[in-house]
Amino acid sequence: MKILGIIVEYNPFHNGHLYHLEKSKEITGADFCVGVMSGNYVQRGEPACIDKFTRAKMALSCGVDVIIELPTPFASSSAEFFAQGAIKILDSINIVTDICFGAETNNLDFLSKIADVLVNESQSFSYNLQNALCEGNSYPRARNIALEKHFKLDKFKDLLNSSNNILAIEYLKALKKMQSSITPHLIQRLHVDYNSDNIIENITSATNIRNLTKLGDFEVLKTIMPKASYDLFIDELSKNNGLRELNDFSDFLQYKLKTISKSELVNISGMNEGIENRLLRCANESYYITDILTKMKTKRYTHTALQRLILHTVIGIGKDCLDNKLYARILGFRSESKHLLKLITENSKIPVITSVNDFLKQNDFSSNLQDEIVWTDIYNLVSRNLSLRYSGQELTHGMIVM
Amino acid sequence: MKILGIIVEYNPFHNGHLYHLEKSKEITGADFCVGVMSGNYVQRGEPACIDKFTRAKMALSCGVDVIIELPTPFASSSAEFFAQGAIKILDSINIVTDICFGAETNNLDFLSKIADVLVNESQSFSYNLQNALCEGNSYPRARNIALEKHFKLDKFKDLLNSSNNILAIEYLKALKKMQSSITPHLIQRLHVDYNSDNIIENITSATNIRNLTKLGDFEVLKTIMPKASYDLFIDELSKNNGLRELNDFSDFLQYKLKTISKSELVNISGMNEGIENRLLRCANESYYITDILTKMKTKRYTHTALQRLILHTVIGIGKDCLDNKLYARILGFRSESKHLLKLITENSKIPVITSVNDFLKQNDFSSNLQDEIVWTDIYNLVSRNLSLRYSGQELTHGMIVM
Repeated sequence: MKILGIIVEYNPFHNGHLYHLEKSKEITGADFCVGVMSGNYVQRGEPACIDKFTRAKMALSCGVDVIIELPTPFASSSAEFFAQGAIKILDSINIVTDICFGAETNNLDFLSKIADVLVNESQSFSYNLQNALCEGNSYPRARNIALEKHFKLDKFKDLLNSSNNILAIEYLKALKKMQSSITPHLIQRLHVDYNSDNIIENITSATNIRNLTKLGDFEVLKTIMPKASYDLFIDELSKNNGLRELNDFSDFLQYKLKTISKSELVNISGMNEGIENRLLRCANESYYITDILTKMKTKRYTHTALQRLILHTVIGIGKDCLDNKLYARILGFRSESKHLLKLITENSKIPVITSVNDFLKQNDFSSNLQDEIVWTDIYNLVSRNLSLRYSGQELTHGMIVM
Repeated sequence: MKILGIIVEYNPFHNGHLYHLEKSKEITGADFCVGVMSGNYVQRGEPACIDKFTRAKMALSCGVDVIIELPTPFASSSAEFFAQGAIKILDSINIVTDICFGAETNNLDFLSKIADVLVNESQSFSYNLQNALCEGNSYPRARNIALEKHFKLDKFKDLLNSSNNILAIEYLKALKKMQSSITPHLIQRLHVDYNSDNIIENITSATNIRNLTKLGDFEVLKTIMPKASYDLFIDELSKNNGLRELNDFSDFLQYKLKTISKSELVNISGMNEGIENRLLRCANESYYITDILTKMKTKRYTHTALQRLILHTVIGIGKDCLDNKLYARILGFRSESKHLLKLITENSKIPVITSVNDFLKQNDFSSNLQDEIVWTDIYNLVSRNLSLRYSGQELTHGMIVM
């Protein structure tokens, strides 16, 4: 039996995601599809525009059989740790045979070669990388420079400036590191870029969908999202009175920076090389997170890395969170794929969690699972609908069955 | 030379305060008047409706010569510690000869006798007090019961249910404990109660003034506040787009309760006997602080005690704050009373601070002074005018000279 694994954010689920899902099933001839999905926070270092249960429903109604949550510290981390966490879950549930991911290129072989170089870092590569870092380049830029030198190629710049290529390489790296038996496949993104506002053949980027939502352009939204996903999206939007955004946390960031001790601040995930002083200074000069980010930007840090840093500060993700025990928390499954859930439960090498409440009652499981309750509480604190701000929803919200 | 000390909140300064001030000068025949005033947080456990510098200006323009800040842990504490802090400052600056305070009664002698009983607590008094506490009474109620038994009187109930009498007794207790040479005087409050919404001879309570402000009844406000005070009040209101209120901190309280550890929470000033669990539970059930307070109320805790608890949680006032070194921070003075400021500086037994910035640069002074910077930052975070929310105002705001 072929079981496909995919790694997704669905923020929110649109026609491009549907294309990727159907193409992946077609390529692999999979019987079932398991999705590992970011929870309430996504890889750009932002709150997901709508909550994870709605996004899980979207996925299930559009053809994913089981949705497993990627814990927040991984979901909101750099491409490297995002990929490591997601691949580790797919590998650990011990039933996935194939994995498909999108990329700007269709050259899996070349991406795989790059992954090899990065996994088995040679001395000369390390030297070039370190050199480029010392010259003040951001990590992604420095890595590019070192790879260009290694492969003696110029076109690297383009290849590694594409966010999905970067993620694809990280997936391949993680598979190699874990010596996973899962077979990787590449699906070339045909139509639009990650951030593009073009709409081609009813496909656009999730960024564009969020922008269209803010503009209230629902007629266009209808044409670029599957009907089931659109209906769930609109329903959630009206319940919550809008989308969640990073700036919704501006108040909390300011308050946190007044009340956190220096030693706690330095311990926040991603807080390196004195950047905490820059954060404190810029937060004193500006109120909104977007303005703080503009002020903070340096050659050394990408905008997204800084965004993650700020998110981690607000919700309190420490440096040690990525070391915690991993688990497979099921957000939802299609009732007709009950068999798959059973297979996962029987085979998984990590705990499979279908109810956070029951699991924590029965297990002394000190991990991100307990913190996820707080992270969700904070996510709900910025709901524009006051009646949705109540605490402990992580414990009371049941698993989705569709 | 006679120097009068008064202890005030001026939240905001109104005709009743002017009456008290002028009557106090008249009774004592004082040459100068020093006011110890609550800073940005007041004894009811709330943010002051407008900031301390504006309130200091009001006081100076209406006839107080020097305004010294009562540090927040004392200003936002129970009557006992509020009084202790304020009297200690007046006593320590070492030039005050007389003190006047308002009370509902005019019987200084009797209040003084009560203070004696409370300072030199007899065994039988302690026993009765403990008994009443064990029966589940709040501390003020239990103290009443024990005092009634001691004096074999019934009318205590009324006497000690009046907040200004209670404060007066605490001032007297503090003077006795410190064996202060300052002579106390009583001024009977003639017109209106603490919370009353009556207006008699152009005098009303500060509570009523805040309510009238919220209703926008400026024509009435004009008649019950001295002109200089009214003008400053209106100016500050328009800058800040309104009054600060406890509910403005609802967001921060919710966020804080999600992110604070249990051991930190238990260490908050006033957090006793497991009340932290009640706070957590009630905050889960309601969003606004006023609603949480209604839910939290028990026979054991007064509404105001709970309000202080919540304020202390939001701004982070620990149990040890009251033990810190005391100082006399001058918020402002009348230029014509420069001589008085010189006298204070020369005679004071505690540090006299005219610039927080300069003082902290020159002194290794670990005390509430450093925390006051954060408490003011948080106070400013709820300004309705975003451009006034910037940090570090404690360090940049100069002393008022009028």
